[in-house]
Amino acid sequence: MHDYTPPNTCSTPSECLPLSQWNETMECGSELAVDTMKKELKSRAILADCSTRMRSIVSFYFCYLLCLCLGIACVVFVSIWNSQWRGGFAWDGSALQFNWHPVLMVTGLVVLYGNGAVLYRIPLTWGQNKLPWKLLHAGVMLLALLCSILGLCAVFDFHNTNSTPNLYSLHSWIGICTTALFTTQWVMGLAGFLLPCSPMSFRKLLKPAHVWMGGCILILSIVSCISGINEKLFFALKGTTNGTMPYGKLPPEALVANSLGVLIVAFGLVVLKILSNQKWQRPEPRSEDLGYSPLLQDDS
Amino acid sequence: MHDYTPPNTCSTPSECLPLSQWNETMECGSELAVDTMKKELKSRAILADCSTRMRSIVSFYFCYLLCLCLGIACVVFVSIWNSQWRGGFAWDGSALQFNWHPVLMVTGLVVLYGNGAVLYRIPLTWGQNKLPWKLLHAGVMLLALLCSILGLCAVFDFHNTNSTPNLYSLHSWIGICTTALFTTQWVMGLAGFLLPCSPMSFRKLLKPAHVWMGGCILILSIVSCISGINEKLFFALKGTTNGTMPYGKLPPEALVANSLGVLIVAFGLVVLKILSNQKWQRPEPRSEDLGYSPLLQDDS
Repeated sequence: MHDYTPPNTCSTPSECLPLSQWNETMECGSELAVDTMKKELKSRAILADCSTRMRSIVSFYFCYLLCLCLGIACVVFVSIWNSQWRGGFAWDGSALQFNWHPVLMVTGLVVLYGNGAVLYRIPLTWGQNKLPWKLLHAGVMLLALLCSILGLCAVFDFHNTNSTPNLYSLHSWIGICTTALFTTQWVMGLAGFLLPCSPMSFRKLLKPAHVWMGGCILILSIVSCISGINEKLFFALKGTTNGTMPYGKLPPEALVANSLGVLIVAFGLVVLKILSNQKWQRPEPRSEDLGYSPLLQDDS
Repeated sequence: MHDYTPPNTCSTPSECLPLSQWNETMECGSELAVDTMKKELKSRAILADCSTRMRSIVSFYFCYLLCLCLGIACVVFVSIWNSQWRGGFAWDGSALQFNWHPVLMVTGLVVLYGNGAVLYRIPLTWGQNKLPWKLLHAGVMLLALLCSILGLCAVFDFHNTNSTPNLYSLHSWIGICTTALFTTQWVMGLAGFLLPCSPMSFRKLLKPAHVWMGGCILILSIVSCISGINEKLFFALKGTTNGTMPYGKLPPEALVANSLGVLIVAFGLVVLKILSNQKWQRPEPRSEDLGYSPLLQDDS
C-alpha cells in the first residue's frame, strides 16, 4: 500500500507562505513573537489547505451522488418504458425480444460503463491498495460489456427471425463501432494493466490512450442510445397505422422515452465532468514507490 | 503583448539535471572540465526540451489539419446529400426548405463551432496579443450561432407550413437545448470576456464553466446531428411507400449520409482531443502581467 500524498498540497508551510522573506522584515520582533507568528501562519495554511480539500471532496461526492441517481433513473425509465408500453420481455425472436436491446444497452453501455469509469475517482479509495479497485473496475466493465453483447444478440436475433437487414442504419453503424471499441479497450486494459507479463513501457504508452478512449466510448454510447431511442419511437408511435397515438402528439410513452434520453445525456455529462476534473484524479504514486508488479502492487 | 513562457519547461538547466549533486562527485576534475561538462549538459537539456516542444507542436498541427479536413468533408457531404438526393434548396415552406436544416446545423453547430473552439490552441497565436484571437473566436462562434438559428427557422417554417407539430421528438428536444445552451454560452462569453465593465471575479468564475460548457455543447451537437440524420434517412428512404430504395438496402444516398454521420463523430472527437490536451492549452500569463482591461489587453 502506498502512502497517500494529496495532490496540489504544500508539504511544508514555507512552501505555501514566504516565511523566510517575512522573517527578514521582522527586525523589531522578539524570537518568541516570530515563533508564535510562524505557528499561527502554519495553522492558517493547514486550515486553508484542509478547507480547499474538503470543498473538492464534497463537490466530488455531490457529482458522484448525482451520477448514481441519474444512473438508477436511466435503468428505471428504460425498464418501465419497455415493460409498460412495449409489452415486456421474452427471448423468442418477437418484438418482446427486441425490448431487451434498449434495456441491456442503456444498462451496460451507459450506466455500468459510466459507473465503472469513475471508480478510481472516489477519494475514499485513494489511501488504499489500488489492486482491489482495479479488479472491481475490470469486473464492472466486463459486466457492462457482457450486457452490451447480449443487447446486440437480442436485436440481431430479432432481425434475423423477421428477415430484417442488420447494420444498415447510422444508429447501428455507430452502435457496433462503440461495442467493438469497448471490446478492444477491455482486452487491451486486461493485457496492459492486469497481466503480469505486460512490460512497463507498454503500460505507460497505453494509460493515456486507455483514459482517452474511455471517454470517447462513453460519448459514442450516448450518441448510439439517443439515436436508437429516437428511431424506436418513430417506428413504434405511428398513429393510425398501428393504432397508437402518434409521436407528434407526445403520448405518455413518448414523454417517458424522451425523458430517458435526457437522463442518459445528463448522466453522460456528469460522468465526463468527473473524469475530466484534474483535482479528482487518483494521485500518482511517488517515484520511489514505482515498481512493476501489476497483480501484486499496482498504481497504473 | 505578454512574453511567452512555454509550459512545462525548465527555466534553468539545473532544474532539469541535478548538476549540484553531480558536481559533488567531480572531485578529480579540473574547473575547466566541470565548466565544459556543464555547458554540454545545458546544451543537451535545451535540445531535449526543444525536441519535446517540437513533437508536441507537430502532433498538434497533425490533429488540427485532421480537424480542418474532417470539417470540410462534413460540409461537402451534407451539401452533396441534400443537393443531389434531396432535391436541392429553396425557402418556400417545401421539403427543399427543410434541406437547409441539416446543412446549416452541421455547418454551424458542428464545423464552425468546433473550429471556433480550437482557435486558442494554435501555438502560432501564443506569442501574440490575445485580443484579435478572442474577437475571431467570438466572431466565428456568432457565425456558428446564426447558422444554427437559421437552420432552426428552416425546419420550424417547414413544419408550420405543413401543419407538422414542432419539438416532439427526442432529436428536437436535444437539438433545441443545444442551441439554447449555445446562445446562453455566447451571451455569457460576450458579457464576461469582452465587455469592459465585467469584473475580474466574474471572469475567473466564468472561465472554467465556459470551457466545460463549450465541450458539452459540442457533444450535444454531435448527438443532435446523428439522431437527426438517422431520423431523416428513415423518413426519406421508405422503399415502395415513396418509390425510393429502402434504407435497409443501403442505397448510395444512405451510404453518403451514414458516412456524413461517421465524419461528424470523428470531427467531434478530434476537436475534443485538441481541447482536452493540457500541453496544447494557451499558456496562462505570468501573475505580474495580470491586469484587468478586457478590450485592450487580455488573457482570460
